[in-house]
Amino acid sequence: MNRIRVRTIAFLALVIAATTATLAMAQMKPEDAIRARQSIMRVMLLNVGPLAGMAQGKIPFNKDVFTANALRLESVWAMNPAQYFLPGTDKPVPGSMIAGFTHAKPEIWSEPAKFKEAQERASDAIGKLAQATRSGDEGAMKAAVGDVGKACANCHDHFRSK
Amino acid sequence: MNRIRVRTIAFLALVIAATTATLAMAQMKPEDAIRARQSIMRVMLLNVGPLAGMAQGKIPFNKDVFTANALRLESVWAMNPAQYFLPGTDKPVPGSMIAGFTHAKPEIWSEPAKFKEAQERASDAIGKLAQATRSGDEGAMKAAVGDVGKACANCHDHFRSK
Repeated sequence: MNRIRVRTIAFLALVIAATTATLAMAQMKPEDAIRARQSIMRVMLLNVGPLAGMAQGKIPFNKDVFTANALRLESVWAMNPAQYFLPGTDKPVPGSMIAGFTHAKPEIWSEPAKFKEAQERASDAIGKLAQATRSGDEGAMKAAVGDVGKACANCHDHFRSK
Repeated sequence: MNRIRVRTIAFLALVIAATTATLAMAQMKPEDAIRARQSIMRVMLLNVGPLAGMAQGKIPFNKDVFTANALRLESVWAMNPAQYFLPGTDKPVPGSMIAGFTHAKPEIWSEPAKFKEAQERASDAIGKLAQATRSGDEGAMKAAVGDVGKACANCHDHFRSK
């Protein structure tokens, strides 16, 4: 085997080790779980931003960008970021470069039914936004962003510290 | 306006402020740029992991999971993480909780043509994986993961510190 092949196999082995925890969450290291949920939510934010800007008329409507972002939002949300709020991930991991903070509030663990309800509200709003986007109707697309914003704010108000 | 509406508008305003920098990259704060690229790449990793596991027979092949991950990989890669390697984002941001480290090597900025070539190789491999996935042929799907791994390793070897 040449060097590239050895390196690639080593790389893929590392990738598998770091992420198949998704299939066995209990074995996931707290810092990896915190980083997974934070990264997913930041990617959500990067997609919601332009959608909100277009819905509110603060940036020009661009149907291609809107469509890409709205469908990506649906796809990335399907990664289920809430699954990474594992027991023991309610505090920053001391000494960790990659999980030195968390905005997670204790209510995530003490009010699981309410947390689940907040997730379902988000799923519903994101699904409706994707549906409106597939319809291609500009007005419906823009209108559907509002409920996504409300669902974000609703969950963050209760479960995310500033 | 009721409280929920005020909160939602405030929330969306914050979201727009934090992310429309995508449309005016030069104004983006270094910590936001570092966090954007790291989050996108972590989301890539979370999707590549199970794909690599399935391609190598380390976890059982699940066509639905494979398809979702491969198409999500294409969609998230289209966010163009490389655009966030802005000048001044080559070092950790002192005192930043969210950008206290970076694996970026100086070669990102000193060898732009080579960096671009590495990105194009990744785009090509990710595009071919998505194409194979849309064909629905299990063998082709698994086979296409190898070149994605090689493209990841190729770029990381040159441009990402351990």
